[in-house]
Amino acid sequence: MSFMSDTPAPAHPAILDAVARANHGLAASYGADEVSKQVERRLAELFETDVSAWMVGSGTAANGLAVATFVSSMGAVLCHQEAHIERDERGAVEFFSGGAKLSLLPGAHAKIDLSALETALARIDPGFVHETPAELLSLTNLTESGAAYAAAEIAERAGAAKARGLAVHLDGARFANAIASTGASPADMTWRAGVDVVTFGATKNGALGCDAIVLFGAARKKAPELQARAKRAGHMPAKMRFLAAQMDAHLADGLWLANARRANAAAARLADGFAAVDGVTLAHPADGNEVFAFMPDALAAKLSGAGVAFHKWLDGSQRFVCSWATKDAEIDAALAALRA
Amino acid sequence: MSFMSDTPAPAHPAILDAVARANHGLAASYGADEVSKQVERRLAELFETDVSAWMVGSGTAANGLAVATFVSSMGAVLCHQEAHIERDERGAVEFFSGGAKLSLLPGAHAKIDLSALETALARIDPGFVHETPAELLSLTNLTESGAAYAAAEIAERAGAAKARGLAVHLDGARFANAIASTGASPADMTWRAGVDVVTFGATKNGALGCDAIVLFGAARKKAPELQARAKRAGHMPAKMRFLAAQMDAHLADGLWLANARRANAAAARLADGFAAVDGVTLAHPADGNEVFAFMPDALAAKLSGAGVAFHKWLDGSQRFVCSWATKDAEIDAALAALRA
Amino acid sequence: MSFMSDTPAPAHPAILDAVARANHGLAASYGADEVSKQVERRLAELFETDVSAWMVGSGTAANGLAVATFVSSMGAVLCHQEAHIERDERGAVEFFSGGAKLSLLPGAHAKIDLSALETALARIDPGFVHETPAELLSLTNLTESGAAYAAAEIAERAGAAKARGLAVHLDGARFANAIASTGASPADMTWRAGVDVVTFGATKNGALGCDAIVLFGAARKKAPELQARAKRAGHMPAKMRFLAAQMDAHLADGLWLANARRANAAAARLADGFAAVDGVTLAHPADGNEVFAFMPDALAAKLSGAGVAFHKWLDGSQRFVCSWATKDAEIDAALAALRA
Amino acid sequence: MSFMSDTPAPAHPAILDAVARANHGLAASYGADEVSKQVERRLAELFETDVSAWMVGSGTAANGLAVATFVSSMGAVLCHQEAHIERDERGAVEFFSGGAKLSLLPGAHAKIDLSALETALARIDPGFVHETPAELLSLTNLTESGAAYAAAEIAERAGAAKARGLAVHLDGARFANAIASTGASPADMTWRAGVDVVTFGATKNGALGCDAIVLFGAARKKAPELQARAKRAGHMPAKMRFLAAQMDAHLADGLWLANARRANAAAARLADGFAAVDGVTLAHPADGNEVFAFMPDALAAKLSGAGVAFHKWLDGSQRFVCSWATKDAEIDAALAALRA
Repeated sequence: MSFMSDTPAPAHPAILDAVARANHGLAASYGADEVSKQVERRLAELFETDVSAWMVGSGTAANGLAVATFVSSMGAVLCHQEAHIERDERGAVEFFSGGAKLSLLPGAHAKIDLSALETALARIDPGFVHETPAELLSLTNLTESGAAYAAAEIAERAGAAKARGLAVHLDGARFANAIASTGASPADMTWRAGVDVVTFGATKNGALGCDAIVLFGAARKKAPELQARAKRAGHMPAKMRFLAAQMDAHLADGLWLANARRANAAAARLADGFAAVDGVTLAHPADGNEVFAFMPDALAAKLSGAGVAFHKWLDGSQRFVCSWATKDAEIDAALAALRA
Repeated sequence: MSFMSDTPAPAHPAILDAVARANHGLAASYGADEVSKQVERRLAELFETDVSAWMVGSGTAANGLAVATFVSSMGAVLCHQEAHIERDERGAVEFFSGGAKLSLLPGAHAKIDLSALETALARIDPGFVHETPAELLSLTNLTESGAAYAAAEIAERAGAAKARGLAVHLDGARFANAIASTGASPADMTWRAGVDVVTFGATKNGALGCDAIVLFGAARKKAPELQARAKRAGHMPAKMRFLAAQMDAHLADGLWLANARRANAAAARLADGFAAVDGVTLAHPADGNEVFAFMPDALAAKLSGAGVAFHKWLDGSQRFVCSWATKDAEIDAALAALRA
Repeated sequence: MSFMSDTPAPAHPAILDAVARANHGLAASYGADEVSKQVERRLAELFETDVSAWMVGSGTAANGLAVATFVSSMGAVLCHQEAHIERDERGAVEFFSGGAKLSLLPGAHAKIDLSALETALARIDPGFVHETPAELLSLTNLTESGAAYAAAEIAERAGAAKARGLAVHLDGARFANAIASTGASPADMTWRAGVDVVTFGATKNGALGCDAIVLFGAARKKAPELQARAKRAGHMPAKMRFLAAQMDAHLADGLWLANARRANAAAARLADGFAAVDGVTLAHPADGNEVFAFMPDALAAKLSGAGVAFHKWLDGSQRFVCSWATKDAEIDAALAALRA
Repeated sequence: MSFMSDTPAPAHPAILDAVARANHGLAASYGADEVSKQVERRLAELFETDVSAWMVGSGTAANGLAVATFVSSMGAVLCHQEAHIERDERGAVEFFSGGAKLSLLPGAHAKIDLSALETALARIDPGFVHETPAELLSLTNLTESGAAYAAAEIAERAGAAKARGLAVHLDGARFANAIASTGASPADMTWRAGVDVVTFGATKNGALGCDAIVLFGAARKKAPELQARAKRAGHMPAKMRFLAAQMDAHLADGLWLANARRANAAAARLADGFAAVDGVTLAHPADGNEVFAFMPDALAAKLSGAGVAFHKWLDGSQRFVCSWATKDAEIDAALAALRA
């Protein structure tokens, strides 16, 4: 029973099947294949607008490339102090951008506090050469604490940033879970809220390894630069059709949403179970597929002893992550072990 | 009938099957899975020595990470003026290294001329702060002209470089083809010849997308730095098992060698056919799976008109690449079109 | 009457004279001249130990080169959240290092809080590839709030960092003022306290434009790398003798200390005057040549109206900086205007 | 008698005097002072057009900043294979640009061969993502072999580059010598010929250490970016007035041209002397202040033995550099030693 992360899960069979189906005959290399084009059409349909998209094999690559396409080496990115790009990507943004700075903002449940954001935005003075001006706001949905921003919360923050001339990036490694949680449309959660570029993750949601960088509106003109950055960083695989097939199946027949709903339901079941255990309290809203619970060390040890795997978080809580493949029986067994 | 490259080819069924087999249950993330460990064992067996290995999804990533692990941002890489790292990777080495310089050397058939190398090596003066000292020699086998270095030729060049304190990298995007061509052992072609790190490609040889960076001997202590660089660049996929499964199947039962032999045989059949056509001459030895042929424009047009795809090279020749999947019938049809 | 900074001040006549004296005959280029060697000897005497030194024309260059010599592109620098390298150098550390990250720590009066430092140090796990490990601690004395660390405070922080394997940098743009303030010896304030490299500023203390990067102990072996970095960044001026002459005069006959004492005394006179004014309170200890005062807007406006120039700080206080050239009469006039 | 370079020479007394005159009272920092503004006016007058200018303390800084302002990290610079930016600046362009590539062109006397340039320009395909497209042409006048491009030769090359959308940089470390040699106007040699940015050196021509980056025409809108790059790289000295005073005096009363003429005349005297010596031949036209002479080893040894210092060049010739301060008597003594 592992709740360590959503990445140890296998790929969804439908996605694996799509990879197998893609494996016939010759296909144009480097993203010029038919499946890649089909993915772009599906994304346009999903987001209800024209998009330019590029697929890569990891979330770190997606974030690094997306951010570097919108922030210069002499600019700064405003993000939450617990953002994945700050804490878990070994300086990928600094690397891809050639030395941009991350300017960190606070906020409960890893949502950027709106007034802290406004203060930071008010202080930007691009004409003052000594300071590094923020050029991009990066939001994360689900947040690193498993909370979901509502579309309106994204719009508030993105709107404030755009009013100051910043671009807006949304780290959507768990975008599907956020959509499943909030019921918002992908369009409302992104470009209609002011997002220029979303990294839309499939890896944690049933793929073998595929995240898409999706550009909206005027940002689409950055597609050639994005592709050149991808090539230079080794993220233009020769046989792109095998990434594309994954995303294609992920988008087909609503699989992305079904998988996310399943993972979210599993997390809700776990959170509900925790609520009934004395001494266990949730650290953050379990909006998506993650549950962060404070519990006495003795309880945590009991769980571990029963073979349940989870991860100690920096705030002292224990993180439990469910995936599309998590079974109710596993959750019930974990809860039973806790209550034993 | 496309001879554009070896990358439009599909994946070999055995490799796809291995990916499917790897897709059960949970697996440790980020390269800590059992299949990845198995690949390292297989590589050690293949190269007859302990190795440290890391897998990535593209040859550009493999080369960029490998080279940057051995050359500082203030150093230079000696390579052939037609090397893939110079001509076809959009400055990946410069990007991964933080600004290293490529110092270009001449040589027939894209092999580095030994005396030009010796002259360049003799001029290195690390104490002269104004110049960028070469810190790494990068060789390519097969070369960009499709020729194969013999193991002794690698040893001559690597030995000269090591005598001056340089590290040695071998770009082995078509390493299997070079081994199939020369009959040398992988060990003789690499570490016994003085190579510190090889990028061993499977992508062009039947994989979906997987190249391994393999460190030998004392260079193995660089493995943690290599992994940190990989993480930072988005080349530490969460579900590494799906890359590992590809390389595992590539190495199992000699598939790597069988695929390369098949591709080489196809190219030999094509080259033999060209030899019988008036006005067609080979630009370079067709040692592996590539044939470079000079031919009158009228002949090239006739071929194109018959639906045969190939690629005009910078030296004026036409490049034809065969893969593990190229069929004799395709070659014969192309030759028939030429002779028609 | 300008208290905007210590940089609008002219150069001290003795330093200008030294430049003129250096201007005869030929001199070896790029730092190989006799005056540069003499400076290294003077610094060794001042710091009571062998040193390796390099001179540059700005504090930003000194900090950028010094820090990048000790932190890799994949590492982090621990520094105060108000440090000059974070707030006032346009990302120079990120640039010089190729993308290192600044990890910010709190603390009153811009001194790094010891327990926050210890918490940050305890969390470093170089083996955890996803996070950016701190490799360097950067302290600033005088701090950005004008406070002076005692040598023992430097030693506490540097000692904690070294115990975790970090290198230690001291940004000494106002090092002379800190020494004049604390009475500590330069040796006790630096290498005896665990500092590996100090950037010792003369620019704010009477030079035309010269700061020295000084390496101590085992860090001296980094001198060739430091020089290569300097060359690459355009900080190896051909006619280095003219930088060297400035530093030489700065060190001769205790001019550095005399200038700093004079500037500190001026600031003390100003701080004392403020203390006697109703509604004016010091934001930070006026240990050196800077005074940060909270005052009602009306008072600030009165001062400005009287032609006194100063600078609004981020904490809401007003910053007044004195230099070696500040005259008592200017201070008295400013105070008189305030009291008027 | 040293002919090693023009950098061991002292500063011209008029320039040193200007520095001393600038040293009174307070001055705005970071380039906002009155002398800096005066320099910009003088440069506009000299070049007969509006300019934006920035001053730095070394030629490497000037070139690195100028080039990086016009080439992206993913682009290439076309330059001569012996250009200073390729051979003598320790990868400064790669550093300042974040990894741009230098694409090297041949040509006699270190002038870029026009047809080689045209071939390179014809091959640029910005839409082909795998290759690094040239974005900038960098010319050098005087060339590294001491030859002077005529204004028409600059215009031919710059025109070809601009027709392909490239920007054009002129490395003018010895620009004054080129103007003195050709008699062209500064305007004809730069913006009228298609040059967007010139690095106009004073350091080798009598300054203590000051080169100006001068932007013309539409390129002037890059001034804020150039300043931000300068700040980030430590090339925005607090007391800029002391750089400005040097350039101001260099430009006043034609000192720049007088110094260059004097240095050129000295070189001509030396070259004429060489012409009269059996076995000595010039390797390159001695158009400016440099003479490259082939001579038997015995002759070179005789000269060295007589205390004459010079520098062995890569082409086997001996390089002799004269400066504004070289005396006829020194030249005559060197020639006498040779003939002895």
